[in-house]
Amino acid sequence: MATPYLGEFLGVATLIVFGDGVVANTVLKKSKAENAGWINIITGWMVGVLAGVFVAVACGAPQADINPAVTFAKLLNGVYSTPDAIMIMISQVAGGFVGGVLTWIFFRGHWELTEDQGAKLAVFCTGPAIRNYTQNLFCEILATLMLVFVIFAMFSKPVGAMMPGFGPFMVAVLVWGLGASLGGTTGYAMNPARDLGPRIAHAICPVYGKGSSDWAYSWVPVVGPLIGGGIAFALAKGVGIL
Amino acid sequence: MATPYLGEFLGVATLIVFGDGVVANTVLKKSKAENAGWINIITGWMVGVLAGVFVAVACGAPQADINPAVTFAKLLNGVYSTPDAIMIMISQVAGGFVGGVLTWIFFRGHWELTEDQGAKLAVFCTGPAIRNYTQNLFCEILATLMLVFVIFAMFSKPVGAMMPGFGPFMVAVLVWGLGASLGGTTGYAMNPARDLGPRIAHAICPVYGKGSSDWAYSWVPVVGPLIGGGIAFALAKGVGIL
Amino acid sequence: MATPYLGEFLGVATLIVFGDGVVANTVLKKSKAENAGWINIITGWMVGVLAGVFVAVACGAPQADINPAVTFAKLLNGVYSTPDAIMIMISQVAGGFVGGVLTWIFFRGHWELTEDQGAKLAVFCTGPAIRNYTQNLFCEILATLMLVFVIFAMFSKPVGAMMPGFGPFMVAVLVWGLGASLGGTTGYAMNPARDLGPRIAHAICPVYGKGSSDWAYSWVPVVGPLIGGGIAFALAKGVGIL
Amino acid sequence: MATPYLGEFLGVATLIVFGDGVVANTVLKKSKAENAGWINIITGWMVGVLAGVFVAVACGAPQADINPAVTFAKLLNGVYSTPDAIMIMISQVAGGFVGGVLTWIFFRGHWELTEDQGAKLAVFCTGPAIRNYTQNLFCEILATLMLVFVIFAMFSKPVGAMMPGFGPFMVAVLVWGLGASLGGTTGYAMNPARDLGPRIAHAICPVYGKGSSDWAYSWVPVVGPLIGGGIAFALAKGVGIL
Repeated sequence: MATPYLGEFLGVATLIVFGDGVVANTVLKKSKAENAGWINIITGWMVGVLAGVFVAVACGAPQADINPAVTFAKLLNGVYSTPDAIMIMISQVAGGFVGGVLTWIFFRGHWELTEDQGAKLAVFCTGPAIRNYTQNLFCEILATLMLVFVIFAMFSKPVGAMMPGFGPFMVAVLVWGLGASLGGTTGYAMNPARDLGPRIAHAICPVYGKGSSDWAYSWVPVVGPLIGGGIAFALAKGVGIL
Repeated sequence: MATPYLGEFLGVATLIVFGDGVVANTVLKKSKAENAGWINIITGWMVGVLAGVFVAVACGAPQADINPAVTFAKLLNGVYSTPDAIMIMISQVAGGFVGGVLTWIFFRGHWELTEDQGAKLAVFCTGPAIRNYTQNLFCEILATLMLVFVIFAMFSKPVGAMMPGFGPFMVAVLVWGLGASLGGTTGYAMNPARDLGPRIAHAICPVYGKGSSDWAYSWVPVVGPLIGGGIAFALAKGVGIL
Repeated sequence: MATPYLGEFLGVATLIVFGDGVVANTVLKKSKAENAGWINIITGWMVGVLAGVFVAVACGAPQADINPAVTFAKLLNGVYSTPDAIMIMISQVAGGFVGGVLTWIFFRGHWELTEDQGAKLAVFCTGPAIRNYTQNLFCEILATLMLVFVIFAMFSKPVGAMMPGFGPFMVAVLVWGLGASLGGTTGYAMNPARDLGPRIAHAICPVYGKGSSDWAYSWVPVVGPLIGGGIAFALAKGVGIL
Repeated sequence: MATPYLGEFLGVATLIVFGDGVVANTVLKKSKAENAGWINIITGWMVGVLAGVFVAVACGAPQADINPAVTFAKLLNGVYSTPDAIMIMISQVAGGFVGGVLTWIFFRGHWELTEDQGAKLAVFCTGPAIRNYTQNLFCEILATLMLVFVIFAMFSKPVGAMMPGFGPFMVAVLVWGLGASLGGTTGYAMNPARDLGPRIAHAICPVYGKGSSDWAYSWVPVVGPLIGGGIAFALAKGVGIL
C-alpha cells in the first residue's frame, strides 16, 4: 500500500499536527504551554519536519519532500515527471488539510476560551506581520530559497552520504533556524501545502468563534515558496551543486 | 542479573527522575529553575527519554520500550508473549513509582514552600487543562498514536539501520516536539507507567501539604495511551511499515 | 564554477542571513518573534553556522572556514598560501556584506517601526555592552580562541574521523554555547567577516532612521578574532593537536 | 606534550569558561544576555561539557572524565591506579581554577555594575537554594549518581560503539537534561573540580565587591559527587553494566 503519494500525504499530515499543534499549544488560552514563546514554536515545527520526513520515507516516499516547493525544485531537476509532481503536491495539500482538522479536534475546548480570531487563524496558517504583498512575497521567496538551497547543499556530493536518520535531523535543525531567524515577518510558510491545506481546514471546520480565513493573502505562501524553490534550483544548478 | 524486567524498571525510573524532576524544578518555590517555563519542561522530558532508553538497553532490555503503550503495540505485533508483556508493564509501573518517590525526596524542603496543591500533583502525574474525559482521552490517544507511529517509522526498513545511540536520540527529539506541540491539553502522558507509577507515589508518600491524587482522572492517561499504541500498530501494519 | 572563493562567499552570506536575520527577527518591532530573547538569538546563529558550512562545502570550499580568524589560523598552519588566504578572506567579507544587504531587504517595513538606532545597528554588527576597547578586545580574543581551539580539538586525530555532516553540526553546537556563555559582553563576533561585511552594508544601505555605523569600534571585532585565531593555532601546535 | 593530566586540565578549564561564563552572562548586569534564564544556563553548561570532552581527548586524555567523580568511579573499576587518579583529580581542580580566573577577567566591568554578592559567587560555584547540608548532600549524590550511571549505560556493550564525536554529544545532552530537571536545588555541581576550582578563584581573585566564598558549604559539592560516583559504580557493577 506504501506509495510516494501515501508517504507524502502522511508526512505532511504529521508535519502539520506538530506545526499547527505547536501554535495552538502556545497561543490558545488555558493550554499548559500558553505563552511558551517563539522558542517553543520553532521547536515544534522543527520536530514536525523530523517526524514528517521519517513518516514519509517509511510510508513509501523515499524523496520525503513533504513540501511542494521542494517537489517543484526537484521537478525542474528531472527527479519527477510533471504528472507525478502534481499528484505528489495534491497529496501534500491533502495531508496539510487533514493535519489542520486533527489540530482543530485536538484543541477542542480551548477555542471557546480564546477570543482573538487572529490567533485562531494563526494556528492553521500564516499571515503577514505587516501586510504588504510585494514584501511578504519577497520574504517567502527568500526564506524558501534558503531552505531548498541549503537542503541541496546538505545532500550534495562534496558533503558525502549521511548515515540513516542524520539527514532528516539536519533538515529539521535547518528549519529550526529558519524559524528563529526569518520567521517573524510572514510566519515562514516556505511550503504551500503547510499553508493551503490547513487554511482550507480553517475555512471548512466549525472552529468556535473563528474569523476570516484571509483568502486575500493565501496566494503569497503558495506562490512565494514555489518561486523560491525554483530560484534555489537554478542557483544550485548554476554553482554546480546539482 | 540484567533482564528485560530490570532494564525496563530502571529505564522508567530514570525517565521519571528526569521527567517528574523537571516539573518540580520548574514549578516548586525557591528552585533556582523556578519559572524556567515550558521549554525547560519539554527539555527535561526529552533527556529523560534519552537517558531512560540507554539505561534500559544497558540493563538488559534491548527493546527499551520504557512505556506500556509501546510494549502493548509490540505485543500486538508479536514481539512479546502476553505474560512477558504483562511482566514488562508491571516493571515499568514499578519504575515509575520509584522515580516519583526519588523526586519527592530530591525536592524536600521545596514542598513546604509551595502552596499550590495542583502544582504539587503536577510534579508527579498529568492532569487536564480543561476537564472533559472524552476530549482528554482523545488527546492522549492521538498524542500516543503520533509517538508510537513515528517511532515505528523511524525504525522501519526504508530508513535503514541507525548507528548506535542515534535511535534513542531521535526518539528523545520526537518527545521534545510532542511536548512542544501537543503537551498543553493533558500534559502529554502518552505512557501509562509515566502517569500511574508516580501517581501512586503521590498517594503514598507524605508529600507536605499535598491535595488529592485525582484518581478520577487516572484512567485517562492509562487507557488513552494503550488505545493510541494499538491504533498506531494497526495503522503501521496497514500501510506496510511493520 | 565551484571554487573555494565562491564557497566561502556563499557560506558567509548564508551565515549572515541567519545571524543578522535572527537579531532583526528578535529585536525589530512587530516581528512575530519580537522579544524571543537570547535563546532565540543564539539558536539562529547556531543554525547559520551549520547552513553556512554545508553551503561552503557544497560550493567548492571543502575547508569551509566561513571565518577569516579560522582561515588565518590555518594559514599559520600551512593549509593556505598567503595570497590564497587573502582572497578567501575578501570573499568572506563580501559574503558578509551581501548577507547584511539581504537582511535589510528582508525586514523592510520593520525598520520604520523601530526607533532604537542601537537596535538597528545591532542587527548588522556587534557592539560592546560596556565600551572599553582593551577589555572588548580581550573578550573577542578569548571567545575566538575558544572557538578555534575547540574546532582544532574536534577535528584532531585522537577524536577520529566524524561521519559526513556531524562535524558541521558539532561546530554549530559549539557556537550555540559560545553565544550562551560568552556572548553578552561584545556580542561574540569571533569572526571579522561576520562583523565588517554587514557593518559596510549598514553604512551603505539606506536603512530607515539608522544612526552611526560605529566605525570607532569596528577594528575590535576584526583584530580581536585574528589574534584569538593566532593564539589558538599556537596553543594547538604547542600541545601537539596540530 | 599531550598527557592525560594536560588533557584533563585543559578540558576542565574549557568546561568552566563555558559553565561559569554562562552564569555570568545570564546574571551580571548589562550583559546582553542578562535575564536569558535557566534554558540559557543549562545550554552553556551542555556545550561546556561537549567542548571540554573534545579538548580533553585531543590533548591526551582519551578517558576525558573532566570530573573527579567520574575519575573516582573509574578508579573503583580499575581503570586508573590510585596515584594516577589523584594526579588527574588535581589537574581537574587546577583546570577549574583557571577557568574561574578567565571568567572573572572576561566579565571585567560587569562586576562593578552588579550589586548582588550571591549572584557574583554563583558565577563561580554552586550554592543551595535552601540550606540544609544533609538534604543538599543527598541532591548532589543523586544527581551525580544519575550522571555517572547513565554515562556507564551509554558506553556499555549492549549499546555498541558510537561513532567519533557522538559519545561526547550524548554526554552533553545528558548534562543539559540534568540541569533542566535536577539543577534547581543545589545548582547541580555533580563535579568537585567544577565547584572547588572556581571557588578558589573567587576567594583569590579581587572580584569587585565580592562577598564570602561560602567555604562552609564547599564540602557538599565535593563529597556528594564522589559518593554519587561511587554508588553509580557499585550499581553499574551490580546490574552487570561494567
